[in-house]
Amino acid sequence: MRIVVLAGGIGGARFLLGVRAVAREVGAEVTAVVNVGDDVTLHGLRICPDLDSVMYTLGGGADPERGWGRVGETWTVKEELAAYGAEPTWFGLGDKDIATHLVRTRMLDAGYPLSAVTDALCDRWQPGIRVLPASDDRVETHAVVEVDGVTKAIHFQEWWIRHRAELPTQRFVFVGAETAKPAAGVLDALAAADVVLVAPSNPVVSVAPILAVPAVREAVATGKAPVVGVSPIIGTAPVRGMADKCLAVVGVECSPAGVGGLFGARSAGGVLDGWLVDESDAGVEVPGLTVHARPLWMTDEAATGAIVRAALSVAGVS
Amino acid sequence: MRIVVLAGGIGGARFLLGVRAVAREVGAEVTAVVNVGDDVTLHGLRICPDLDSVMYTLGGGADPERGWGRVGETWTVKEELAAYGAEPTWFGLGDKDIATHLVRTRMLDAGYPLSAVTDALCDRWQPGIRVLPASDDRVETHAVVEVDGVTKAIHFQEWWIRHRAELPTQRFVFVGAETAKPAAGVLDALAAADVVLVAPSNPVVSVAPILAVPAVREAVATGKAPVVGVSPIIGTAPVRGMADKCLAVVGVECSPAGVGGLFGARSAGGVLDGWLVDESDAGVEVPGLTVHARPLWMTDEAATGAIVRAALSVAGVS
Repeated sequence: MRIVVLAGGIGGARFLLGVRAVAREVGAEVTAVVNVGDDVTLHGLRICPDLDSVMYTLGGGADPERGWGRVGETWTVKEELAAYGAEPTWFGLGDKDIATHLVRTRMLDAGYPLSAVTDALCDRWQPGIRVLPASDDRVETHAVVEVDGVTKAIHFQEWWIRHRAELPTQRFVFVGAETAKPAAGVLDALAAADVVLVAPSNPVVSVAPILAVPAVREAVATGKAPVVGVSPIIGTAPVRGMADKCLAVVGVECSPAGVGGLFGARSAGGVLDGWLVDESDAGVEVPGLTVHARPLWMTDEAATGAIVRAALSVAGVS
Repeated sequence: MRIVVLAGGIGGARFLLGVRAVAREVGAEVTAVVNVGDDVTLHGLRICPDLDSVMYTLGGGADPERGWGRVGETWTVKEELAAYGAEPTWFGLGDKDIATHLVRTRMLDAGYPLSAVTDALCDRWQPGIRVLPASDDRVETHAVVEVDGVTKAIHFQEWWIRHRAELPTQRFVFVGAETAKPAAGVLDALAAADVVLVAPSNPVVSVAPILAVPAVREAVATGKAPVVGVSPIIGTAPVRGMADKCLAVVGVECSPAGVGGLFGARSAGGVLDGWLVDESDAGVEVPGLTVHARPLWMTDEAATGAIVRAALSVAGVS
C-alpha cells in the first residue's frame, strides 16, 4: 500500500508518527507532502518550520514539551543576535536548529532544490518515510492586515508569532502559489497513491497552501486514490494551535462541519471523499462526504495509529 | 596625536589594548588597520578572525584563556553541523561567534562593504578605537603546499588549523591583493597619522597581507609619519603562535633581526624606521633601522602600554 499524507507542522508531524507506525505494521510506503507556506528567511537563514517539525519529530529530535524545535535546545545565537540589535528578535531561532538552517541555506545557495535539500537533511534524521516539500518554488503565506488604518501584507510568521494572530486580518495570500509547480516526486507519489490522507493540520494555513499549488490540488482532486481528512477541530476548538483564528479570517465556522465543508467533497469540486471527526462530534454531516466519528486525541503513537487505521477504513483501503 | 596600528589577530588585539590605554592617557586617536587575509567563508558564513579578535578583545568579550573567540563560548551549532556531516569540521565555530558572522554575512550580502559592516558590529563592542579592515576587497592568504607529490593552494585557515602548519609549503599567496584597494578610511588615516606602529603580529601572514595591498604599502612606506615595529620574536621563538613556521616558508630567520630585515628600512625600500626588540635581544642590528631593546612580554595592559610608549619614543613622537 502507498499512503500520501498532506501535512503541516506540529499536528502533521504527530499524525505522521501514527501513519508510520501503521505503515510498518502493514508494510506500506508513506510519502508526506509538507506545507512550505510558513517558510521564511531570517538573518540570512532559510527556515522551513513545517518540514523541520516533521523531520525532527519522526527522527526523534523534536522537543515533545514545546512541540516545535529541537529537544535540549539552547538559544545563544538568538541572544547574541539581539545584542547586535539584529531584527527580528521575535522568532524562536535555536542553536541546534540553526545548524539545520545553515546546511539548508548553503545547499539552496548552491542551487539544489528544496526537495533535494530536504532529502539530504533526512539522511541524518532517517524519518522512515519520504518527506517532500509541496513545492520547490516559493509559496509563501502572507496575511493581509490592517494596522493603524493602513492595509498591508505581512509574512505569516510575523502574523502568527510576533502578533499572535491578533491583528485585524482581511485574508491570507499564498504568494507564488499560482505559478508554483509541485516539488520533484509529489505528482508521482500522488499518482501512485492508494490513499491520500489530510492530516489534522491547520486547514487554512497548513493544508490550503499545499493545495494552492494548482497541479497538487488537481492531482488530489482528480486522482484515483480516495482522500480522507482528519478533523483538526474537536467541538468548536482546535486540537492545538490557532486554527480558530485562521478560520475566522476566511469566514469558516470553527467546527468539524465547517472545516469539512471548507475542504469540500471531490464530487462537488472539493478534495475529500471521507472525513473523520471526534466521537464527541458524532452526527456531523458534510454534503458529499462519508463522515465517521471516533476518538481523535493524538495522546500517543498508539492512539494516533488507531486514528490512522480508522481513516484508512473510511477510505476503504484497510 | 593620531596613531595608526597595523595589526593581525590575537597578538595585534593584545597590543591594541596597550595602545588604547596610552592613547587615553595622552588624548590620542587610534586607528587599527587589520589583516583580512585570514578571512574565510565556511558554512555560508563570512568569518573575519582578525577583525573579530580585535573587536572582541577591545570590547571585553574575548576569551582570555584561549586567546581567540568569545568568553563563555559554546559549540552547539558546530556539533550539529558535524552531525549533518557538513564540512569542514576542523574550524572552531562558536555559537556566540556565529551571531557575529550571521550579521556580517547578511550585511555583506546586502551590499555593504566590510568596513561598514565592521563599523556596525563595533557599535555593539565599542572598542574605543577605530577598527578598519585593510581592504574591502578580497585579499586571501593561500598556502602553496605539496600533498602526495601534488602542488596545490589551500586557504590559510586550512593550512593553519586543519594541518597545523605542518605541510611541506612552498610559499604564501595573497589572492586578490594586487588589485585590492585600501578600505574606506585607511588611506586618510595613514595620511593623517603622526605615527604608524606595526603590532607584534605574525609578520608573514598577518602584517604582510596588509602591506600586500599596493596603496597601503605605498602610504606606509612613503608617508610623513615615522613607522615603528614591535618584534613578534623574542630570541628565536615567536611570542605566540606559529610565526616560526611561517618565517621558515619564506626563508627568513626566526629572530628579531630576521623579521626586522624582512620588513626592511623605509630608506631602503622597506616599511620601518624603528624596531623594538626584547631586552634579551639587546644589541641586535638591522640595516637602516633605529633598534631599541626593552621588555616585550605583553603580560598585562600596563606592561603592553609601556611597550607602546617605548615604540612612540623610538618614533620620536612621545
